[in-house]
Amino acid sequence: MLGLMQDFPLLVHRVLDHAARWHGETEIVSRSVEGPIHRTTYSEINGRARALASVAARRLGVGQGTIVATMAWNTWRHLEIWYGIMGLGAVVHTLNPRLFADQLDYIINHAGDQWIFVDLSFVGLFEKLQDRLPRVKGFVVMTDAAHMPAATTLRNPVCYEELLAQGDAGFAWPQFDENTACGLCYTSGTTGNPKGVVYSHRSNVLHALMVSLPDVKAISSRDAVMPVVPMFHANAWSLAFSCPMNGAKMVMPGPKLDGASVYELLTSERVTLSSAVPTVWMMLLQHLETNPDLHLPDLKRLFIGGSACPEVIIKFFGERYGVDVIHGWGMTEMSPIGSAATPTAATAALAEDGWWPIKLKQGRAPFMVDMKITDDAGQSLPHDGKTFGCLKVKGPAVARSYFRDEGTQAFDADGWFDTGDVATIDPYGFMHITDRSKDVIKSGGEWISSIELENIAIGCAGVLEAAAIGLPHPKWDERPLLVIVRKAGAQTCKADIMAYMQGRIAKWWLPDDVVFVDEIPHTATGKISKLALRERFRDYRWPCA
Amino acid sequence: MLGLMQDFPLLVHRVLDHAARWHGETEIVSRSVEGPIHRTTYSEINGRARALASVAARRLGVGQGTIVATMAWNTWRHLEIWYGIMGLGAVVHTLNPRLFADQLDYIINHAGDQWIFVDLSFVGLFEKLQDRLPRVKGFVVMTDAAHMPAATTLRNPVCYEELLAQGDAGFAWPQFDENTACGLCYTSGTTGNPKGVVYSHRSNVLHALMVSLPDVKAISSRDAVMPVVPMFHANAWSLAFSCPMNGAKMVMPGPKLDGASVYELLTSERVTLSSAVPTVWMMLLQHLETNPDLHLPDLKRLFIGGSACPEVIIKFFGERYGVDVIHGWGMTEMSPIGSAATPTAATAALAEDGWWPIKLKQGRAPFMVDMKITDDAGQSLPHDGKTFGCLKVKGPAVARSYFRDEGTQAFDADGWFDTGDVATIDPYGFMHITDRSKDVIKSGGEWISSIELENIAIGCAGVLEAAAIGLPHPKWDERPLLVIVRKAGAQTCKADIMAYMQGRIAKWWLPDDVVFVDEIPHTATGKISKLALRERFRDYRWPCA
Repeated sequence: MLGLMQDFPLLVHRVLDHAARWHGETEIVSRSVEGPIHRTTYSEINGRARALASVAARRLGVGQGTIVATMAWNTWRHLEIWYGIMGLGAVVHTLNPRLFADQLDYIINHAGDQWIFVDLSFVGLFEKLQDRLPRVKGFVVMTDAAHMPAATTLRNPVCYEELLAQGDAGFAWPQFDENTACGLCYTSGTTGNPKGVVYSHRSNVLHALMVSLPDVKAISSRDAVMPVVPMFHANAWSLAFSCPMNGAKMVMPGPKLDGASVYELLTSERVTLSSAVPTVWMMLLQHLETNPDLHLPDLKRLFIGGSACPEVIIKFFGERYGVDVIHGWGMTEMSPIGSAATPTAATAALAEDGWWPIKLKQGRAPFMVDMKITDDAGQSLPHDGKTFGCLKVKGPAVARSYFRDEGTQAFDADGWFDTGDVATIDPYGFMHITDRSKDVIKSGGEWISSIELENIAIGCAGVLEAAAIGLPHPKWDERPLLVIVRKAGAQTCKADIMAYMQGRIAKWWLPDDVVFVDEIPHTATGKISKLALRERFRDYRWPCA
Repeated sequence: MLGLMQDFPLLVHRVLDHAARWHGETEIVSRSVEGPIHRTTYSEINGRARALASVAARRLGVGQGTIVATMAWNTWRHLEIWYGIMGLGAVVHTLNPRLFADQLDYIINHAGDQWIFVDLSFVGLFEKLQDRLPRVKGFVVMTDAAHMPAATTLRNPVCYEELLAQGDAGFAWPQFDENTACGLCYTSGTTGNPKGVVYSHRSNVLHALMVSLPDVKAISSRDAVMPVVPMFHANAWSLAFSCPMNGAKMVMPGPKLDGASVYELLTSERVTLSSAVPTVWMMLLQHLETNPDLHLPDLKRLFIGGSACPEVIIKFFGERYGVDVIHGWGMTEMSPIGSAATPTAATAALAEDGWWPIKLKQGRAPFMVDMKITDDAGQSLPHDGKTFGCLKVKGPAVARSYFRDEGTQAFDADGWFDTGDVATIDPYGFMHITDRSKDVIKSGGEWISSIELENIAIGCAGVLEAAAIGLPHPKWDERPLLVIVRKAGAQTCKADIMAYMQGRIAKWWLPDDVVFVDEIPHTATGKISKLALRERFRDYRWPCA
């Protein structure tokens, strides 16, 4: 027996329709790539998205299943393009300008992008790259006629505003299934080629509902939200959907993410909630520290993800500006939000020193995300806050496979996606990432967190940087080797470090050896390259006991 | 091209699974029908719901599509039954004990209920009624062996706790489509037979997500929520789903809804949010007024629906106890929430006297509800806060037809459901119900709100009760007749009332005549019976001008 409720497919453009109809005058304020601050409304964005859809269908040949790329900052135009292209049943493939040319080349050809919408900032990049992209029909430059680069060598260059002027703001969205693809984002895998995650209309709408909940980002129509997190990466953490869904004002930072520029918009546009990786807040912190007379009177919440936020930043914003910094965690494969460290009734009842270590964790699963930690055999491990295991996730906004069927090994028979992270889950349900699976040190069947060893070693006087890696061991399978860069002039030796670590961790976690190097290798995104380190110490031999 | 996200059907028992897994120790506290306060957790409820499902399938023959009725107060057992029966793909048909025997008889037979789960309070009712319910196989009495009525004449009486003891708490939910029916609730139509609304798993889950949003009920895991609104009526305004969805504690009032009992649970269980019709808050208000030393230290929000809440109640709770009373509106056909009067950024910026008249309206549409007002020809009318028209709604939790295809005329060709209400929508998006369609007075092609005439007349000295009805008029089609009951001893005459109303409404809204009666007829639910009034004044003749 079926229910007798209305058929209402979960389509992302219905979100914009809702915003235009019920919050039509609510503003989207952007720092434009051309320079000036630009102001528009949901009502206007809706008309322009429909106009774009009509003309993209007619003039660019975009239809259901066409893949259209964007390389663009967060602005009103990027928002229009998302809705206009997705509303046709076509797919928006967001390109990350921070990728290397080889990766861009690979993913654009792998995806089969037909057109690329580019901000003025990236015209030069594609002028150089386009010869390696033979199947791309042309480029739409996201600007008006006045700013159109006169002598661009781009193939079939189209001026966005001129294109839009030929569109029909009353264009009716076509009808299609809610499981239709609407977004494509490649993960920058540390090994192998990037893999594409394909979002559907349904997954994005459900994910936006989840992200809007009081225990995740708590987005209301009284909020002014600044997504510093880029639309070109991991769905802008849902804000391009969850803001219009709830009628929140949007403040788009465009290309300027430095402390002064971010501060200017936070205050002039009275932003109440913002989202970004810790680096952005570090830059804002520096700006505030050098300008001690500045305040953040409207900002209430900062949602931080991408990597763990240093405690000092959370305390700085909390104590000095009354801003609650909320840890989140997610992955491109999760649309991307998987958890948020907002208090439950039980943790809200804890004293400050009981709550603080929990607040620093990655948080707990909202409805529509399920998580478990397992051992190597796939057996579930207890939620005791100590035992750590492979973190696996499930949900309607979690990928079930990658584009063109690559990397299916990440999904087990019961449909759990292996995040590649190692984590603990505490009795309150708060998850804490302790390592990447490939970096965890497996000693005698038990696991040692490389990150925890590093965090402790860094506290020892004279230590500038620390990296822990597991190396083969005849008896224990693997044992930890600690690699240290000393501070300039420091004389710290192995005995000092071992003495410091003793008592701070279980005895069997203590590294079997400590070696000193001048430099630790890093990846392009600034993380320690464990891969390079393991390679470098491939021929290392343990000292005789 | 389809998205590549996981298949995760929106099934209501996944909501309980989430609560059990991530908020397993969170309490459900109930005033039991037997008397004592009962405490349990989401983890236990989940095990018992699964146990019930296993034994209902095995012993009661409940399977996909079986309709099982409940007549029960809000308690943990009622919650278990909802999830246990729905989780089988069967349908829970909630019976309202306030219905007349003839209506109960009709809807139970019309639905084809196989079993009825009854609280002890209703055993006597069904002992009398069961002979008219030949197809009901038996009755499960929701109590333990010690409280089981010894000499009940109920057909096939089963003791709930004895039944449950034979179940399997590890029972695995069967798999089925998210559009499967899970709930059935009849609307008590004022004309014709009651009509059944059939909720699906998908509609209930989407509706619960919507209700949880910050701009509707804003339900978080830090909330303790008391649904005074009964589970036997209109889905308990979603709280049986939205509380476990967000891990909120539930406080169930059982059979005692008087001011003292409600107050006791509000304070002893530290309730932060509650929901009920105005009558309940009126009773609480009286209790508080007669006990001026009482406080409501934890209560933050009261969500009120069912009928418009008098301004005095909203002010009383706000000014004296710091409790924000939020107007909502909905219908059984809408699962039931359609709007909430929470402020937007624009209305939050208004001065108190600008916001207050808006706060008294029924509120604005969250995402997944769309609304429009139309004239008799179906043309959309402007959102100017003055023009009023037929209120029509759309959404995934709005009915598309009634059970067994009755009453299809309420749904137009474009899928809009006609609410039967007449409303205005203001430029901020706030909707205000001004009348029922069948009660609005149509004068010369324009509409006059009978409710507004009554609200104004009631302010005139000496008026106890007022009712306005439209009666046929040779020139204007209809004109308003005002029917008045005077306060004891009052001498108020027609001229007094007309003088009072002049200047307070448009001249053409003034009633053509005022008549005085000893009593105005009411319906079973206490509303003025316009039907009976129109019948009584059928032969009325207008005074000569």
